[in-house]
Amino acid sequence: MADLTSYTTTVARNARAASRDIAVLSGQTRTDWLKRTEELIRARGDEVIAANQADLKNAPEFGLTSAATERLRLDESRLDAIAASVGQIAMLPDPLGEIIDSNPRPNGLLVTRVRVPLGVVFFIYEARPNVTVDAAALCVKSGNAVILRGGKEAFHSNQALHGLLADALADVRIPPAAVQLVETTDRQAVGQFLKLQDLIDVTIPRGGKALIERVTAEATMPVIKHFDGVCHVYVDRDADQDMAESIVVNSKCQRPGVCNAAESLLVHADIANEFVTRIAGSLRSQGVELRCCPRCRELLDDVQAATDEDFRTEYLDLIMSVCIVDDLDSAVNHIMEFGSGHTDAIVTNSLRSADEFAQRVDASAVMINASTRFNDGGEFGLGAEIGISTDRFHARGPCGLREMTSYKYVVHGNGQIK
Amino acid sequence: MADLTSYTTTVARNARAASRDIAVLSGQTRTDWLKRTEELIRARGDEVIAANQADLKNAPEFGLTSAATERLRLDESRLDAIAASVGQIAMLPDPLGEIIDSNPRPNGLLVTRVRVPLGVVFFIYEARPNVTVDAAALCVKSGNAVILRGGKEAFHSNQALHGLLADALADVRIPPAAVQLVETTDRQAVGQFLKLQDLIDVTIPRGGKALIERVTAEATMPVIKHFDGVCHVYVDRDADQDMAESIVVNSKCQRPGVCNAAESLLVHADIANEFVTRIAGSLRSQGVELRCCPRCRELLDDVQAATDEDFRTEYLDLIMSVCIVDDLDSAVNHIMEFGSGHTDAIVTNSLRSADEFAQRVDASAVMINASTRFNDGGEFGLGAEIGISTDRFHARGPCGLREMTSYKYVVHGNGQIK
Repeated sequence: MADLTSYTTTVARNARAASRDIAVLSGQTRTDWLKRTEELIRARGDEVIAANQADLKNAPEFGLTSAATERLRLDESRLDAIAASVGQIAMLPDPLGEIIDSNPRPNGLLVTRVRVPLGVVFFIYEARPNVTVDAAALCVKSGNAVILRGGKEAFHSNQALHGLLADALADVRIPPAAVQLVETTDRQAVGQFLKLQDLIDVTIPRGGKALIERVTAEATMPVIKHFDGVCHVYVDRDADQDMAESIVVNSKCQRPGVCNAAESLLVHADIANEFVTRIAGSLRSQGVELRCCPRCRELLDDVQAATDEDFRTEYLDLIMSVCIVDDLDSAVNHIMEFGSGHTDAIVTNSLRSADEFAQRVDASAVMINASTRFNDGGEFGLGAEIGISTDRFHARGPCGLREMTSYKYVVHGNGQIK
Repeated sequence: MADLTSYTTTVARNARAASRDIAVLSGQTRTDWLKRTEELIRARGDEVIAANQADLKNAPEFGLTSAATERLRLDESRLDAIAASVGQIAMLPDPLGEIIDSNPRPNGLLVTRVRVPLGVVFFIYEARPNVTVDAAALCVKSGNAVILRGGKEAFHSNQALHGLLADALADVRIPPAAVQLVETTDRQAVGQFLKLQDLIDVTIPRGGKALIERVTAEATMPVIKHFDGVCHVYVDRDADQDMAESIVVNSKCQRPGVCNAAESLLVHADIANEFVTRIAGSLRSQGVELRCCPRCRELLDDVQAATDEDFRTEYLDLIMSVCIVDDLDSAVNHIMEFGSGHTDAIVTNSLRSADEFAQRVDASAVMINASTRFNDGGEFGLGAEIGISTDRFHARGPCGLREMTSYKYVVHGNGQIK
């Protein structure tokens, strides 16, 4: 790439121009593109799989772990799942044009807020080619132009998939710059894009902590971030202990490697004697290693002590820190000190405890008598999600199509002057 | 200030701690603080006026223009207005705790979104002491802690006003760090605060372009920006010309120095012969200088030619650029090329033109048959505003209490696991 600055600026300018076109297309045209994309993925999957073979062949050269290589792999069933996901996004209601609210004023003006796209989205992700399709589908459905920058290890797969997306754009006559794939694997290209705050409205990094930290540090435009999930389950004095056991085990064990899995268990001191022994047995039978506070260690044999660092750690593994707390107040303070504001659950039959916990715990989702694992766009009924935001600004928690939009005021008058 | 880094970090940490307390205070306590603040401003205005005298005395030393000195001046009537504004904010509905929406899921979970404060707001403004009170009132009413950094030219006035705010906090037992005034006029303090993305949730600069550009460049956290208003009135072929005249004159002349005043007039070619002569007469009789496109100059004597630069300029003065356009499409393209996305109006009786203009013009507010001057929090019924955002992310257009909030998901279950 001779001149990276000129390349990235051109890509972003074209995206900006396309975003204006796509913002005013009918919802039907955007939906048609999604349906056509689904068809093309089903019809021409062999091209994608061939390209993916090339990436898989190079994977050892890039030093990909076997887990990462597995995430990179595309086969017929994975392509089916990608196509099906596009089909599902096609069926979601159009988020654009909604009148969010309206305010008739005494002078006869009708002030309305109308939902519009954000504009241009810069999507940066790692070697997971399914994200190429998923991100494009969500962006176009919500009327945004998108610049896709996938991991270099998936370069050929992404090019093949983007070829299908581009053909579908041409078929329904949406400008090609609505969905662009960055054609260089030069790391500096990302830095160049992150400078273009006038041409890119939001950057969404999807990947590990290092990627998110780099993007946050360099971006001049807003970023939708997804940081750690140090998620808690607090078992209150007034908990149904059967329910508590089932929620703790599910939150920890159902899929320990994801952000909304629980990492830390807090137990009210008044029920600790009974409950800690019981839950330790259940968790250990699931292969969970416990790291415990001093009081908790008095109740259990052979458990490792939990350090402050343990209470701050997102294990993403079958490990759980356990702390006995004096009361709900201590539980909340512990969560505020050690948690990451992602997902925290309480198990209780006390209305007062539930209300206080929900009010005081400052997390993207607070669960009352439910597993932390439910903090998810699909489970919340958003239909699809681009990730779970740990920010407070613009979007918090699972982000679906609505979170990819802005609004404008449209004011209807009949000659009003001030 | 011996160690600026340690000072700014301490201020921000204290704000973060206070923000947690204030977020869970009753709306009544926050309202009581506003009422008490109103009382204290009315009762102890003499202290503030004395401090203001000291600032006014120093104004020439700081090189303040006479207009800026005028904005700095506080007298009894201005303090009355400040107190009244606090009283009005006190009466606004509490934005917090609102259930924004709820989504009952098939598995019995009830997913709700509950409105919560943003957290810690860093407010940077110039030598306008009224902003000290206004910003604090809006932040505390919406449950946020605020760090106030006013212009050095208003240092004594701000200290006196902050003294009242702090006394009112003590009277209603809100932690003092809920409203902090930065105690140094060192410019580097701003840079230090702008690095603290983990302690400050949003920065709001209120002032000139240079301030906003500096803050945008340095901030590591989100910024609510308020850039230029290059606002248009487009008079369509199907306009009521009496209405058009009145809206153009009002948009340009009612208060030319503000962001929602019109700077540029677009006239449909089919009515240009008639309307341009007419509106030129009205505008000139109000002292407006016109800068015109070539076609327009053929219709008018003695008018200066408009350059592209003119069409991009926010005059904030009795000057207006005028351009004849072939049709609505050309008008929209002109606005997209030269406008700033702040406020654009159409005057038309055609439903189709109104709809197309509203859909295609990408501005924080689109006015149909109404003056651009109505793009304002008060006029839109927000009760009070912190400014008009020209961003698309989080908040667009006038920002009131709602725009100072975020949300969290609160999920009610009865033992659901995944």
